[in-house]
This record gives sequence, C-alpha cells and structure tokens, in this order.
Amino acid sequence: MSKDKGFVSEITPQAEDFSRWYIDVIKKAELMDYSPVRGCIVFRPEGYEIWENIQKELDRRFKETGHRNAYFPMFIPESFFQKEKEHVEGFNPELPFVTEAGGEILEERLAVRPTSETMFGHMYSKWIQSYRDLPMLINQWANVVRWEKRTLPFLRTSEFLWQEGHTAHEDEADARKETMTMLDVYTDFVENVLAIPVIKGQKTPSEKFAGAVDTYSIEAMMKDGRAVQAGTSHYLGTNFAVAFDIKYLSRENNLEYCHTTSWGVSTRLIGALIMVHGDDRGLVMPPKVAPTQLIMIPIGPPKTREQVIAKTDELYAQLKAAGVRVRVDDRSDVSPGWKFNEYEMRGVPIRLELGPRDLENGVCVLVSRITGEKKQVPLDNIVAEVEAALEAAHNDMYNRALQFREENFYSVETLDELKASADEKRGFALAGWCGSDACEKQVKDETGYTSRNIPFETAETKTKCLVCGDDAKHTVVFAKAY
Amino acid sequence: MSKDKGFVSEITPQAEDFSRWYIDVIKKAELMDYSPVRGCIVFRPEGYEIWENIQKELDRRFKETGHRNAYFPMFIPESFFQKEKEHVEGFNPELPFVTEAGGEILEERLAVRPTSETMFGHMYSKWIQSYRDLPMLINQWANVVRWEKRTLPFLRTSEFLWQEGHTAHEDEADARKETMTMLDVYTDFVENVLAIPVIKGQKTPSEKFAGAVDTYSIEAMMKDGRAVQAGTSHYLGTNFAVAFDIKYLSRENNLEYCHTTSWGVSTRLIGALIMVHGDDRGLVMPPKVAPTQLIMIPIGPPKTREQVIAKTDELYAQLKAAGVRVRVDDRSDVSPGWKFNEYEMRGVPIRLELGPRDLENGVCVLVSRITGEKKQVPLDNIVAEVEAALEAAHNDMYNRALQFREENFYSVETLDELKASADEKRGFALAGWCGSDACEKQVKDETGYTSRNIPFETAETKTKCLVCGDDAKHTVVFAKAY
Repeated sequence: MSKDKGFVSEITPQAEDFSRWYIDVIKKAELMDYSPVRGCIVFRPEGYEIWENIQKELDRRFKETGHRNAYFPMFIPESFFQKEKEHVEGFNPELPFVTEAGGEILEERLAVRPTSETMFGHMYSKWIQSYRDLPMLINQWANVVRWEKRTLPFLRTSEFLWQEGHTAHEDEADARKETMTMLDVYTDFVENVLAIPVIKGQKTPSEKFAGAVDTYSIEAMMKDGRAVQAGTSHYLGTNFAVAFDIKYLSRENNLEYCHTTSWGVSTRLIGALIMVHGDDRGLVMPPKVAPTQLIMIPIGPPKTREQVIAKTDELYAQLKAAGVRVRVDDRSDVSPGWKFNEYEMRGVPIRLELGPRDLENGVCVLVSRITGEKKQVPLDNIVAEVEAALEAAHNDMYNRALQFREENFYSVETLDELKASADEKRGFALAGWCGSDACEKQVKDETGYTSRNIPFETAETKTKCLVCGDDAKHTVVFAKAY
Repeated sequence: MSKDKGFVSEITPQAEDFSRWYIDVIKKAELMDYSPVRGCIVFRPEGYEIWENIQKELDRRFKETGHRNAYFPMFIPESFFQKEKEHVEGFNPELPFVTEAGGEILEERLAVRPTSETMFGHMYSKWIQSYRDLPMLINQWANVVRWEKRTLPFLRTSEFLWQEGHTAHEDEADARKETMTMLDVYTDFVENVLAIPVIKGQKTPSEKFAGAVDTYSIEAMMKDGRAVQAGTSHYLGTNFAVAFDIKYLSRENNLEYCHTTSWGVSTRLIGALIMVHGDDRGLVMPPKVAPTQLIMIPIGPPKTREQVIAKTDELYAQLKAAGVRVRVDDRSDVSPGWKFNEYEMRGVPIRLELGPRDLENGVCVLVSRITGEKKQVPLDNIVAEVEAALEAAHNDMYNRALQFREENFYSVETLDELKASADEKRGFALAGWCGSDACEKQVKDETGYTSRNIPFETAETKTKCLVCGDDAKHTVVFAKAY
C-alpha cells in the first residue's frame, strides 16, 4: 500500500467537523483521490474493491429476478432529450456535450449520458413488437456524468459509476410490480449486505425523477443526521413509451404503449456506508463488502517468528479456502501496535493476533473492530469462529445504525418546531404535509430540510400540514440531505 | 428472446460474402444492434453475456498475477496528450472533445479517453515516492472512444469496452518481465478459453503503440484469412514517466524515473471468436464463454409431455447445480426441428434431446454443435457426460482453428510472390524483412498486407527482405487485418 503525498496524519473527530472527518478517512485509507478534472475522482483499488463487492451481490440479485445485462452507447443525440419534456428540463442543466470528434465539428451535439431512459427507449421501440417480447428486463453497469456545481467524493461527483435497470411491460400493474420488486431488492441489499437500515417510501412530486410518474426511494441516515438517498425505483408510466414510440401488439391484437420502469444505485453507496459506520478511529467496513474481512498479525519476539509465521500461513490457507477475504501482515519493520491502528483506521472488521504462547496453547486472540471486544478462540475451529465473528459484526453494525437512527428520528407539528429543532438537533423529522408544492418549498427555504420520502410504514400518522395547518395528505420524512 | 424488426431470415454463406455472413449472424443471434450514434453499437444481452464471461476469466487471472482494479476519470484534459509527443500524434486524430458542460464553455477541452496512460501517469506521479511503492499494478475495466472512420461491430467501433492495465516498476528488467507476463496471460486466455490459437510476437516500429518502446501482440487468423490483433502488451520505457514526472527514491537513495507498461484486450475479442469459429449455420460459441453451454429440448407426443418435462427438470437441476450454463426450451408452440436450427444458429455447443422412449431406457441423445456427432448418453451420469462433451467441444474447436491456420499459412520470398498470392490465396504470409519502414510501407501499399508481428517462434527463418532483397533482420508475419 503506497504512501500519499500530503498524507493525512490525523483524522479530524466527527464531532468537530464531520465533513473534514469524511475527507480525512477516505484519503488516509486510500479509497479515492482527486483528479485533475473538476468534480471527478479516482476510485483507488481500496475504494474500487468495495464497488466490486457491491456489484457482485447486486448483480446476483438482478439475475435471480430475471434481468440480463447489456451495454448501451454513452453518447446520446441532443434531440433525444427533447422528446420527453420533464426529462429535458431535469437533466439539461447538467449535461456535458461532445461537439467535436475526429477533428470535425459534429452536426448534432452528443450528450454524455446522465441516465439512459432515452437510449433504451429508442432501442426498445425497435426490439419490442408483441406481448411475447414482454417483459423486457435489462440492466447495465456504466459510468454516467452529471456536471455538478458542488461535489463530494462518492456522494456527488461529476462522473460516477452505477447500474441502471430499464424494463418494459404490458400494463401498469406489471410495471408497478417491477418497480416495487426492485425497491425490495435494494432494501434487502442495503440492509443485509451494507448493514444500513433504510426508510422505504415514495418521493413527493417535486423530488421525483424527471419524467417519472412515481419515484420510490430508500433513505438512510448518516452519522451527522443527514440523509442519503441510497436507491431509487421509478414507475415511468407510458411517458417514455409515448416519447419513443415503444408499442406492442397485445394479446387482444391491439397496438398498445408499453409501461416502463427504471431503477438505479450508484457509487454513492460507498459514501453512505462510510458515513453510517465510520468512527473517530477511521473506517468501519461492513463485513460483506469489506475488501479485507480479516487481518492476521503475527506477534512475539524474533526467535519465535519463524514458527509463528508458519502457523499463520497454515491458518491463512484454511480461511482463504473457506472463502474469507483474509490478508496477513507479517512485516517485521513495523510494530504490531502500528499495524493494529492501521487496520482499525482501514476498517477491517476482524483482527487475529497470533502470538507464540497462544499458538502453543492452540488459541489466538480475535478482536472486533466494531465492539472492540477481544477474545481467545480455539485454532482448531478457526473458520467457524471467524465466520461467526463476521456475522456478529454485521449484526452489531446494523443494530448500532438502527439505534442511532431511532435516537435521531423525531416528530414535529409545525414549521416553527422544525426550525427550532433544525438548529439544535440533527436527524430526520416526521411531519404532516398537505400535499402542496408551496408548503414543501417553504420548509426547504426556511430550514434547509427537504422531503425525503413518504414512508410506507410509520409509527405515527400526522393529521395537519406543518406549514399551513390544513389537513395532512401525507406523513413525510424531512431531513437535510447529501 | 425477442424478434427483431428487419429480422434476417437467411444467413449469407461465408464463401459468398464473409462480411455479410458476419453481420447476418450477429444480428440474427441478437448479439448487437446498431445505435443512432455513428459507429456505436448496443451490446445486447446475448452479446454482453459473452463479455461478462470473458471478464470473469480474465479478471481472475489479473488478480492471481497481483493486480488490483481501480477506476479513473474518462475525461482527460487536452493538455495531457501534448506531454508525450508520439502519443498525441497517434491519438489526436481520433479524439472526441467535450467543449461545453453544465451550460458553459469549458476553459480547457476535455478528451473522452481513447486509452489512459496519461491519466494514470498523472496520478502515479502523486502516489509513487519510493521503491517501497513499486511495483504499482493496477487494471481498469472501462469504456473508451476512438472516433473511427470505418467501423465494424465488435471489431472496430467508436465506443468500445476493454480493460487497460497500467503498471510502474523500478527498472527495465522488472517492467519487461511484466510486459511478457501479461502477454502470456492473454495467450493462455485466448487459446485455452476462447479456443483460438495465436501467434505471439513483437510489433514492428511502425505498428507499435503510440508512445511505447516496444509493443507485443497476439495475432489470430479469422476464417476469411484476415488477422485480428487479439491483445497487446507494451513496454513504455520511461517515456510516460518523463512526461508525467513519475519518479521514486531508489534503494540506493537516488531519484529515478519509473519504467511503465500497459496492456489491454477489448470487446473485439467477441468479433474474433465469431469469425474464427462460426460457420454457415451460424455462431459456434466456445464452451467456456458461451452464455448457454447446453440446451435441453424435450421431444415426443403430447401424451408423454408431462413425464418428459418432469425428467428434464430433474436433469436441469443437476446440471445447474454442477455449474453448467444450461437452459431448457420446453415451448410447445414451436417444433423440435425449429429449435434445433435456432440453437445451432445461436452456437450453443451441446444439445440434449429428451424423448419418452429414451428416458424410459435411462438415456438421452447428446448432439455436438461442432462435430454434428450424435450419441446416446446414460442419464445417471449426465453431469460427467456433459462436462466431457464441453471439454471435447473446446478441444475440437481449437484444433480446427489451428488446422485452418496451418493450411492458410504460407511463405514468400519476394513482393511479387506476395502480390500474386494476395490475389489467389487468403491467410498469413511469412517473409523476410530488412527492418526499413520504406520496405514495410511498400508491402502495404502494393498488397494491402500489413506486418502483424515478428513471431517469437517460427518454423522457418528468412534471410532476405521480400522487398529490397537485402539481408533480413526479421522474419515477419504479413496479413490483411481487421
């Protein structure tokens, strides 16, 4: 692992400056670096490997739910964006354009894709003729670009990596079912793989995807109380089908428009898992996506070194064969104490300390990054011990994140109450909303809180709008968001 | 599987028009479609899945040889290309430029990456300080763009997918070792996974990568006798290290330039495997990357249907569990004969026909797409039978491709001989070459043949240059190339 020029020697405490803490840990742990292009980062191997593990888990789930991957061109003719009115309004301000190529000025400018509803729409109109071709269920893993004014590594960058699913269906019921299936896939993944509890719900009209009929999201709470939208799933109705002429011959022999959906998650999940789990010592990686799940550190005096390393290698081979992502740090020019700090900072969930006396007694010391708990474990059962410790670490992380969210989830009746709490508290506020854009906008203007979503499940149902006091149509989660 | 507007009902025979045959099969088998952007194709699921299988196999090999993946920005400031003289000359004519973004004209134009030596170089100069940071071994899977005048699906498209490895080393010896290791990884992969025999060798100076000291390639022969460069590995010397200031403190405490390498393969491998293995009935997929390795087709009269399908499902589950990529086509509205043709056209290596009488006798019929051989195999040993058949199919394909190459590999003494043979023959020609650019250019101008590489191993060593008759410095493989 290489050293960095401008190496960050200290990590700013979270309570002092959460944003500084975030930048300190991701730089120090070598997850990313800034690039010479505005708002674009380099995903370094330690950061990219998290994404690879995310991809593996999600891709399996997509395939199990009947989807196949494909790859569509990243350049999109400018005219395509004009075809869906809301879509162009939503994305036009953020588009980069290729205007010259191969030494010539292009006749039509090409946008670099911010999302691919238009390109999929164009191709689907060629591929879909009959109900027999439906549903069409395609996903792509790709880079996308949105020329953002304010950027933050992983959470908001000009170029980022994501997956975008695009599906076409015979009718609304089937498309809505797909929309919910994928929201459930995301929920399962984020909760059970990333150990992040989420709130499932529907976006308000002002926050929905440009061109969607309905947008659904999962929202997660960071350790500074802010929200991150961790995944979205859109029911697009026939909006893109009409714009791109995606029609099929129905079972009743009528020519009908398809109902389409799209859904995506991105590399912002990396930012989210850091901000949910990290602490003042550095990263805390969820075991199921951690590049290194287990670090083994041989200790003891030089004269026992050979024998300790031999035993370590033997255990390493066993763990590796069992599928554990394990590394050994047997360098002799850095102290065990330095290594302990280093791998704590990098967020490795489990550490094994292997000393000569313990090994003689057939045990070693297992230390949890999450709880700090140390315990002796028998070597002859090492794989099961490590697997149980990883499972426990995942559960600890999820429960801590859930507890934190519950402690920072409150309820307000009026805008004044929200204003007051926005100054002293952090977290998510539950409030009633009449459904008007004006009231929603007033909340945003006066508090900086935006509506995150209208949760599917909530312990409390509000009856009055926090702004105008009229009857509440919805109970909404408001928060400051990344 | 969807039907296509403009569905190709017939496949042009290879002998009649090889290019037409190629387009016919890739369209009919739904591997790709043309996009509305010039020279950019859509990789449809059937085509993209080949790439996914290629990625899986290669990625494992990269990691086993010590590399890690990362992701670098696709936009590269124009000024970066100016820093390495040969590099800018080589790539400038093909660059697309983003000149506007977010509604504003950019101060510096951004190229969309054609390859990333410059961006890696810039970042490596920040990350590498000491010999302890070396070697730095990073790969990325990415899309790249080269604005090509003449395009051909998979083989030459404006946007394509590839991997690019970029490594930095202490000295020439270590960098040259890496260059050869990766050429060997490619050779192993292309021969043992794609079943394509290749010729390993060094590119002549006029054909080397823009900015490299030496370029090495593997070259494969298509069924029309043309060559496809299937992979390249470059020793870049200190060219990019000097241009981007990639220096390290050596073991002797001196500040030294790194020696760097780069190496890549792309989605053109999909085109190559089609052109090497396909025949007049359609695709023939190498078993190790085939999206479907085995198709199971239940046959027999309606009254036995239920029982046949029950048994098919049971066998399917066994094969699936064993890791075979198997599908069942139990549709009752298309005939077995239609299905046989369909999956032959799609190149599925093995077909199982499951009829009621055979099943009663505990057997089924296994048909090889490659040899056409049919044989009865016992059901109680089906996994081993299928695995053996897939292995045999791979070997048959490799041997046929090798035999074809040997039959179309000839030797010439003079340019006149090459000119004559270029008209009547197809294939690769071995000839002596004095080493001058002028002679090489004359071969190209008068025959359309280009030097493919200087093979590491050759049965014959030429002593005279085919053009000028001077002493030959090298024995070179010449061919028409895609």
